[in-house]
Amino acid sequence: MAKTNPGRFFEDYTLGEVIVHAVPRTVSGGERALYHALYPARHALASSDAFAQSCGLPASPLDDIAAFHVVFGKTVPDISLNALANLGYAEGHWLRPVWPGDTLRSESEVIGLKQNSNGKSGVVWVRTRGFNQHDDVVIEYVRWAMVRKRDLERPAPEPVIPDLQEAVTPDQLVIPEGLDFSGYDFALAGEPHRFGDYEIGETIDHVDGVTVEEAEHMLATRLWQNTAKVHFDATQREDGRRLIYGGHVISMARALSFNGLANAQVVVALNGGAHANPCFAGDTIRAWSEVLDKAETAAPGVGALRLRLVATKGGAPFRLRGENGKYLPEVLLDLDYWALIPL
Amino acid sequence: MAKTNPGRFFEDYTLGEVIVHAVPRTVSGGERALYHALYPARHALASSDAFAQSCGLPASPLDDIAAFHVVFGKTVPDISLNALANLGYAEGHWLRPVWPGDTLRSESEVIGLKQNSNGKSGVVWVRTRGFNQHDDVVIEYVRWAMVRKRDLERPAPEPVIPDLQEAVTPDQLVIPEGLDFSGYDFALAGEPHRFGDYEIGETIDHVDGVTVEEAEHMLATRLWQNTAKVHFDATQREDGRRLIYGGHVISMARALSFNGLANAQVVVALNGGAHANPCFAGDTIRAWSEVLDKAETAAPGVGALRLRLVATKGGAPFRLRGENGKYLPEVLLDLDYWALIPL
Amino acid sequence: MAKTNPGRFFEDYTLGEVIVHAVPRTVSGGERALYHALYPARHALASSDAFAQSCGLPASPLDDIAAFHVVFGKTVPDISLNALANLGYAEGHWLRPVWPGDTLRSESEVIGLKQNSNGKSGVVWVRTRGFNQHDDVVIEYVRWAMVRKRDLERPAPEPVIPDLQEAVTPDQLVIPEGLDFSGYDFALAGEPHRFGDYEIGETIDHVDGVTVEEAEHMLATRLWQNTAKVHFDATQREDGRRLIYGGHVISMARALSFNGLANAQVVVALNGGAHANPCFAGDTIRAWSEVLDKAETAAPGVGALRLRLVATKGGAPFRLRGENGKYLPEVLLDLDYWALIPL
Repeated sequence: MAKTNPGRFFEDYTLGEVIVHAVPRTVSGGERALYHALYPARHALASSDAFAQSCGLPASPLDDIAAFHVVFGKTVPDISLNALANLGYAEGHWLRPVWPGDTLRSESEVIGLKQNSNGKSGVVWVRTRGFNQHDDVVIEYVRWAMVRKRDLERPAPEPVIPDLQEAVTPDQLVIPEGLDFSGYDFALAGEPHRFGDYEIGETIDHVDGVTVEEAEHMLATRLWQNTAKVHFDATQREDGRRLIYGGHVISMARALSFNGLANAQVVVALNGGAHANPCFAGDTIRAWSEVLDKAETAAPGVGALRLRLVATKGGAPFRLRGENGKYLPEVLLDLDYWALIPL
Repeated sequence: MAKTNPGRFFEDYTLGEVIVHAVPRTVSGGERALYHALYPARHALASSDAFAQSCGLPASPLDDIAAFHVVFGKTVPDISLNALANLGYAEGHWLRPVWPGDTLRSESEVIGLKQNSNGKSGVVWVRTRGFNQHDDVVIEYVRWAMVRKRDLERPAPEPVIPDLQEAVTPDQLVIPEGLDFSGYDFALAGEPHRFGDYEIGETIDHVDGVTVEEAEHMLATRLWQNTAKVHFDATQREDGRRLIYGGHVISMARALSFNGLANAQVVVALNGGAHANPCFAGDTIRAWSEVLDKAETAAPGVGALRLRLVATKGGAPFRLRGENGKYLPEVLLDLDYWALIPL
Repeated sequence: MAKTNPGRFFEDYTLGEVIVHAVPRTVSGGERALYHALYPARHALASSDAFAQSCGLPASPLDDIAAFHVVFGKTVPDISLNALANLGYAEGHWLRPVWPGDTLRSESEVIGLKQNSNGKSGVVWVRTRGFNQHDDVVIEYVRWAMVRKRDLERPAPEPVIPDLQEAVTPDQLVIPEGLDFSGYDFALAGEPHRFGDYEIGETIDHVDGVTVEEAEHMLATRLWQNTAKVHFDATQREDGRRLIYGGHVISMARALSFNGLANAQVVVALNGGAHANPCFAGDTIRAWSEVLDKAETAAPGVGALRLRLVATKGGAPFRLRGENGKYLPEVLLDLDYWALIPL
């Protein structure tokens, strides 16, 4: 009996099944320190207990994107080991902050299946939930990936394509319990721009660039216990380069967005996202944002911005797609999310 | 008076003396996070407080091999600064888990001395003990190294070669207090294979490979406060490469062995080990294991596997030595240890 | 309205103004672990709670230089984003240890301004103070930098050059509360050399060298939330190299100085410092020290050494300046500080 994990193939998924992902993980100040070493992360709420307390929280939570990586990483051995492409995200919600000392685990429910017309692969939709040690859901999101078939003879399942929201609506945003921006300290946060200073359609060039090294993206990807071979094994490609985990680009872009969006403190929902082109060591990552929507919330002093966050490895800012409608070759990431910002 | 440490030479060791190693170290969640960033470590017991508690422990301990590195690192300035070769390990025991917050220090007793026939060097055997802040021994092991003489005129000491066990016997294994695998969660641990699924003589290819970078092995080796120049100073070799600390290879191989040995949760004894060939940045480390022995223990639901863990930098798995009896050039590590696994 | 931070130019500073720097930061065992991974730091007081407690402290503080970096990093977006050169340090004091769990923030008071004769830039002197969450000053120091003008038409301010001490005097040294070296354990600390063993004028070659990688200095510099582009963006220079943060060299040299100054446990004052030449990845950093002065203190068993710490990237030790009085090209750092050492 082979004891190593071959990963799941398309025919191994059943609609409605819930996959329990392995290796729960307790996070601490160590994960926070590493996150700050790996990315130029400066949002004050995830940097300072005192600042978080001045915003009504008991302590500084783990960076929201870091929490996402912990939950996501656990799903890789069951979902994406034989994936040909990571196709999209939708209906992502950060439901509760993750605190140092929390233990996270993940489960994924299969909510859609559609074999491709070539009969060699299919698309699998899963809704993944990350739980803390109290069995509270801390994060949930839908993700779909194209997965290889192993046994091409197996009949195609009845196609089921889930009906997904184009974007999370403002009334669906879940504000962290106690969050209160009415006494927000803009000087300590680093920028004076508040909710009212951002307009729908506005674009922001985040200016700074970070050149990525092999050691850095591997440290990050291992920290999230993501096991996909392509990120670690230089013998997987003829040119010896390792494909950088798409989440590394998300974190880098979100951290760079501090410069212009320093007060967009809390990532609260994920509407969609595409890893437009691969990223490799030596690339210099830059980022720009576009304000897609705005909404007030019921929490004191707390507004929400819907933002497009684009990461590039060159080229001018604010260019996304070519005349053919496809992403330009320098675009790495096109992410659509909601963030909370003081009114 | 020269104030820097020249290291000890063969003639500086006296049979029976106890060397107090410098620089005690307090470990925290920071060391755990870094360990997970440096290696693809996924054994659940060292990853999750909740999982560890479900196995009868008060919290998730520091990874057993990480604890070994902390204890070992302290010995380098006194034992291996002038070593020509690290020759072997024996009689290694993990006697107590190391918890975040513990402070470790090390001592080594000289238990054997034998000058080489060339008169230029000799072999020193030491039994090293790592203590926590309560003066409990947490780890002990025997190690021997070939050390240069400084003063070739000094007479050879009476040769004393310690009588070492070929392997720790099952009845000598010290099980962590409270460990209970009777309610073990195989889904969260990541694999269904239990004690009864492994057979003596069985070999397991752990499949995955990790390409190593200079920055990574130096971060790891410094974290253990190992000061050996060859790991850090590119001017020590004509080709500018830095020799990778053998312990980096041990940790990488042990972490890779998750894929096939996910339930071999606790490293409990070290029977022997050889660093067969040097490892350098750019090498892609892979690992395979062989089941050497099996034993039940007195702890509830807890069995023990004696495992050979081999790390390579290429070549096919399960090949260890050439026709001449020597390690094949691609073999980096041949380690023999006992691990605890659910029955 | 542009939302990104363009940095301040010379004409943006006003004598006497206090700049509140952004992004407070809570430190934990994670920062300590990373510091030990990034540098060969072995001073026992910043490594072990048990050792620190045996010296009268409640726990092991964050390494003094690490604390300096946290305070300094916050000032970069406001002081040095448009700096042409970092010119000097003076009157630096470590006033209170920084403990894991502390939250640090920084403020800088403009204490001097002098436009250069070319009218294109000027020198800005600031006294920076780092505060903990109790609003106690933990570190303060004076720093001056040459900063570009944006608007060359703006009239020069009245020149004010602050009157700075050539060195902190022994009576001004602030000893950490409770520090007591009368029961100091030299074996655990790693060297037998005490206050009386060092003579004014004595020089010490710290022997060891560390070759620096791009990934390492970027991890370090991000950890301190220092945002200066030149450290991260390979497109800023034609040769694609990133200029290494001068503080990385300070930490490396201070850590290397363990070998010969293992008992110089506490950095207590900064008299001055020059980043003599730039450092790049691939350089092998070495260090030597010179004893400049000695003084006893009122604390039990505690003496103070005034030390010159020089980092180099080659060449013989103890050579600092050429015949023209300029730093030799291999000299990276010339730092002048006070450290506490057992009598």
